[in-house]
Amino acid sequence: MKEKIPVGILGATGLVGQEFVRLLGDHPFFRIEFLSASSSSSGRLYRDVVRWKMGEPLPPEIGEIKLIETDPEAILKTGVRVVFSALPSDVALHVEGALREGGMLIFSNSSAYRMSPDVPILIPEVNHEHLSLVKLQRGNYRGAIITNSNCAVSGLVMALKPLYDEFGIREVTVSTYQSISGAGLSGLPAMDIASNLIPFIPGEEEKIERETRKILGELKNLKINPAPLKIHASCCRVPVRRGHLESVVVKLDGRPSPEDIKASLSSFKGLPQTLNLPTSPLRPLEVMEEEDRPQPVMDVFSGYPERAKGMTVTLGRLRYDGEVLKFFLLVNNTVRGAAGTSVLNAELALAEGLLEF
Amino acid sequence: MKEKIPVGILGATGLVGQEFVRLLGDHPFFRIEFLSASSSSSGRLYRDVVRWKMGEPLPPEIGEIKLIETDPEAILKTGVRVVFSALPSDVALHVEGALREGGMLIFSNSSAYRMSPDVPILIPEVNHEHLSLVKLQRGNYRGAIITNSNCAVSGLVMALKPLYDEFGIREVTVSTYQSISGAGLSGLPAMDIASNLIPFIPGEEEKIERETRKILGELKNLKINPAPLKIHASCCRVPVRRGHLESVVVKLDGRPSPEDIKASLSSFKGLPQTLNLPTSPLRPLEVMEEEDRPQPVMDVFSGYPERAKGMTVTLGRLRYDGEVLKFFLLVNNTVRGAAGTSVLNAELALAEGLLEF
Amino acid sequence: MKEKIPVGILGATGLVGQEFVRLLGDHPFFRIEFLSASSSSSGRLYRDVVRWKMGEPLPPEIGEIKLIETDPEAILKTGVRVVFSALPSDVALHVEGALREGGMLIFSNSSAYRMSPDVPILIPEVNHEHLSLVKLQRGNYRGAIITNSNCAVSGLVMALKPLYDEFGIREVTVSTYQSISGAGLSGLPAMDIASNLIPFIPGEEEKIERETRKILGELKNLKINPAPLKIHASCCRVPVRRGHLESVVVKLDGRPSPEDIKASLSSFKGLPQTLNLPTSPLRPLEVMEEEDRPQPVMDVFSGYPERAKGMTVTLGRLRYDGEVLKFFLLVNNTVRGAAGTSVLNAELALAEGLLEF
Amino acid sequence: MKEKIPVGILGATGLVGQEFVRLLGDHPFFRIEFLSASSSSSGRLYRDVVRWKMGEPLPPEIGEIKLIETDPEAILKTGVRVVFSALPSDVALHVEGALREGGMLIFSNSSAYRMSPDVPILIPEVNHEHLSLVKLQRGNYRGAIITNSNCAVSGLVMALKPLYDEFGIREVTVSTYQSISGAGLSGLPAMDIASNLIPFIPGEEEKIERETRKILGELKNLKINPAPLKIHASCCRVPVRRGHLESVVVKLDGRPSPEDIKASLSSFKGLPQTLNLPTSPLRPLEVMEEEDRPQPVMDVFSGYPERAKGMTVTLGRLRYDGEVLKFFLLVNNTVRGAAGTSVLNAELALAEGLLEF
Repeated sequence: MKEKIPVGILGATGLVGQEFVRLLGDHPFFRIEFLSASSSSSGRLYRDVVRWKMGEPLPPEIGEIKLIETDPEAILKTGVRVVFSALPSDVALHVEGALREGGMLIFSNSSAYRMSPDVPILIPEVNHEHLSLVKLQRGNYRGAIITNSNCAVSGLVMALKPLYDEFGIREVTVSTYQSISGAGLSGLPAMDIASNLIPFIPGEEEKIERETRKILGELKNLKINPAPLKIHASCCRVPVRRGHLESVVVKLDGRPSPEDIKASLSSFKGLPQTLNLPTSPLRPLEVMEEEDRPQPVMDVFSGYPERAKGMTVTLGRLRYDGEVLKFFLLVNNTVRGAAGTSVLNAELALAEGLLEF
Repeated sequence: MKEKIPVGILGATGLVGQEFVRLLGDHPFFRIEFLSASSSSSGRLYRDVVRWKMGEPLPPEIGEIKLIETDPEAILKTGVRVVFSALPSDVALHVEGALREGGMLIFSNSSAYRMSPDVPILIPEVNHEHLSLVKLQRGNYRGAIITNSNCAVSGLVMALKPLYDEFGIREVTVSTYQSISGAGLSGLPAMDIASNLIPFIPGEEEKIERETRKILGELKNLKINPAPLKIHASCCRVPVRRGHLESVVVKLDGRPSPEDIKASLSSFKGLPQTLNLPTSPLRPLEVMEEEDRPQPVMDVFSGYPERAKGMTVTLGRLRYDGEVLKFFLLVNNTVRGAAGTSVLNAELALAEGLLEF
Repeated sequence: MKEKIPVGILGATGLVGQEFVRLLGDHPFFRIEFLSASSSSSGRLYRDVVRWKMGEPLPPEIGEIKLIETDPEAILKTGVRVVFSALPSDVALHVEGALREGGMLIFSNSSAYRMSPDVPILIPEVNHEHLSLVKLQRGNYRGAIITNSNCAVSGLVMALKPLYDEFGIREVTVSTYQSISGAGLSGLPAMDIASNLIPFIPGEEEKIERETRKILGELKNLKINPAPLKIHASCCRVPVRRGHLESVVVKLDGRPSPEDIKASLSSFKGLPQTLNLPTSPLRPLEVMEEEDRPQPVMDVFSGYPERAKGMTVTLGRLRYDGEVLKFFLLVNNTVRGAAGTSVLNAELALAEGLLEF
Repeated sequence: MKEKIPVGILGATGLVGQEFVRLLGDHPFFRIEFLSASSSSSGRLYRDVVRWKMGEPLPPEIGEIKLIETDPEAILKTGVRVVFSALPSDVALHVEGALREGGMLIFSNSSAYRMSPDVPILIPEVNHEHLSLVKLQRGNYRGAIITNSNCAVSGLVMALKPLYDEFGIREVTVSTYQSISGAGLSGLPAMDIASNLIPFIPGEEEKIERETRKILGELKNLKINPAPLKIHASCCRVPVRRGHLESVVVKLDGRPSPEDIKASLSSFKGLPQTLNLPTSPLRPLEVMEEEDRPQPVMDVFSGYPERAKGMTVTLGRLRYDGEVLKFFLLVNNTVRGAAGTSVLNAELALAEGLLEF
């Protein structure tokens, strides 16, 4: 058996950082070499700093790791070449940029570089071919940044992809029901959201509109042409712990039958399924038949093995009148919408030979 | 001072029934003469049966009222001519029909007769002229039924009305965030909704689509022609106690400026405001300027006097790109969406001379 | 490998019934032979009737089981000798009694027979010797009933047992924080408990006081003498999905050191651990060191393998001033507090040779 | 009519600060002259800084007040002599001390000076005579500090007072169910408490034990001798917005009848009721007869006029076996437990002539 590739996790104490720790703590290809946090925590043991919120115990040996500061110099000194970033965008802008200059490959959940023309927003089932933008970056820097999308976008774009390819899409209207975990460990005071709704998430609607078009965009000569569909997004925070529900209304170009639509969604597969990557779910999309599903409490966290720990997007309530297609979807925002897709991106990059330094 | 008109409340122990009691317990024109409940409670005191959930105390003298059975014969014997109905639809179909035959005027929150061609779904600010359908009914029966709309419809149609009249509307897409009180006192088990979302409310989407078209419809020769706009509705239950939030996307016919739209909504008034009816709010619509409002906890129950105890619909986050108008609205589902509008309907009917028997 | 023992589950569609299905669906000693439900559901497939709320999928082959009616005659006809009962108490009184007459061994979560002198309330780690009461029953009936305790009692009595044996207990004061799942699938309307507290659970305080004394009681000549300690219980429902938290204040007879107390709790083991029964946790009690644990969201459902799927009771915040011992405990109310302990009881009964008919 | 006394509010943007604004915005004796906040907000309008969470609208003229910095020099320059403090304890230690030196009378919700021998923890219904400690302070400083108690203490001590005086109390065991508003506007991240319980509130149990003894203590020669009763407190945060529920178990010295106990609690009145102070409730304690009350959603916020906007403590579920008295109580933590009692303290001080400078 080959030796595992050493990796680092930037911003390891937050909620997405913890998901990275959970997913990489026992990964067949990668092993955690270092964890970074803000300067106030550096030098302390991970277990003494982290407010661990995962449903599984913190692996004891990872709890013993001494945190290093999220400082490019300190990070580059580790000699590690692959990092996963759960940094906030303002910090990421500087740190990820410096690490790329220093030759690192960064799989980032941050939005800082998502809209850069040479940076892919990668969801392997949807746009694996965008990974080749890395070549463009490597022309200018020693390293490269590969991002995953905004958490609400990840579910939406996966559901849209097969419809877009098979029937064409003119217009998408989406209203979101986003859980509090989307605001991170401490991002949302309880008094704001307890038994309440907040119909505003800063920057979210813009991200949904432009990231979706980029991800569905066509790559030509190492340039992405955004997909020409209209997207109208309205975002709302709801008092639910995990999982973003989305009410989606789609106008298709073609006029398929309801059965065609369902078959298109249910049978959707991508390169991760073909390559059988460790973090890929058997089925990227699952169309539920029950009249009142998907529901966060039952469908986000489930022990259902075929949903691969939160990587499957569940859909339900498909309604199609020949003109307008309506459905609800549910995405595990910290797994498929964040750390999980970043890990899948790294597995794809490894399979494509990009991790041979 | 004129003597108050005696009224009865059908289904007085449920949540909407309690709102009727609260609103009519100290009303300038009406006084509660009887309260009805199911046969198992009849003969008992209201205060011993009701699980009172209002934020104000049950008036002691109303607590002492002995419940009568929701039985047409017993109700007709009371001699009362005006009743407010909070009955479930299946019961309402029989009881309200029989009471109408018996000469009563029924202000009903039930959906049983809403779609009958001769029954108005009345929201006085929006379609007061539909009240004349009562003439049609009185041609066939001794009494008449006047309904208010579904709770989610009430907020939506009030926001649409000024836009529809001033600019024309082609298409409306709405996703709802409906509170648990919408399911009544005992309609929803806690295990179903606690920290969860349920993207399905039986019959609700159909009601939104067809009631909205009827209410906005044109009355000609005592016949309502449904408004020719398309409506796409998706309904979801959320773990919030009171207030239905709605994410609304509207395609207008015209191309007004954003200022025109805001002015149209903010200045909207109707006949109840002109007549200064007791239950009418100063402003039917309030457009909030804050970037994250309206919110149920702050805007549904508020002691804000100009919101008249839940009769004002609050709107916020108006976004208009010249083509698509997006906003959120919040409606107090048990007041404006149910008992409050029924009481307003009775006040209008009184002003129009329909309560002179 | 020996053949598995066929068993039935009474009341299989409720929350505790579902836990039984989950725990017995893949059990090394037992296999589900039949599932019963009320007459309105009998004849239908389990998957078509059950509102499945478990975190793991319903095993497809169990979904295909056709429900039989919870009728003694029908049940006795199956030929099965061992049943698990999740029946409500009023139904259990008749059905369990009739099945016992018919020769069945019933492992029951119902409270109907708990206080009968010849019926054990069995928690194998605490009072395995009470199982011998079965002999007493078999003198009078062909079968026997073995109950588990009330859900709040199960956590309390496990924490008290080592303290009682080692140091003596004079008095216990307990205030509970009981989750909504304790009221079953539909037992509690959302409007009652959403963002609210209900300081009353019918019958619960009495159960805590008398069941605890019985379980800790001494068995002499097949008669249980209740333990002579005082118990003051106050019960409250809280808006949490799973897990009952309890604030416990104990007055000990002796004056051990804080270290003695902690050691007594942490090292507590019972017969199920010695026998290595499949459903027994490695550690019945886990004393958490963190200053703010246990917490339902993290400690009830956890994938922590040593907690054996909800069979470990977690304790925290031990405070001892030499006179009064205070701590919080958390128990998984549907597993350790209900179905899990019943299954453990059956495993113990099997080990003791009671299942050889 | 006499001119109103100008007052300032320190820390006016937080939750307790907002309660002060609400209670003093339309007060018969006081008028708000200035509002202070941290340096980052000073110079800005109150309405632009505050995240207003009250159920009533912010009075427009108060919204227009320009915030000053919470700096002793700036505050003393205002010339105002009476301030209400909602400062965090660490800030209060310095600021309130300096203002006292400067001659101000400070009605403080902070815990910084509560345990100073010359500072009263004043709850006018319980220990109005402690107000004379102000003389002691004025011997040493130009001004004085008068505190109200910890929020959980306020409800407890009011319920204990009549029992203590009439029957004697040996021992009190209390477990709390404290709402998220107790942690302030932003003190508790939603991910920590949503659908969860946290059985730890830093410092709270110690405060309950020592503040209760001080408040019930006897004043002799300007020295308070703490009441000699034992108190065992266990504190837990629960996912409820407003109101602290407490499960209280009391051992009395005497052996009154249950009727005596109820009468003692129900008829409890104090000096504020005699003086008819504006913020005093008609009944400081209300014993509810329903089997499942008090409940936060219905009893904390209620429009019940006799509960005076949150100043009445509601009790329920009195259970007495001749030896141990058990009950639940509910206190509005931001009104009776914080700003409301401070305002009542100022009204009492005014009545006692302490506000004549």
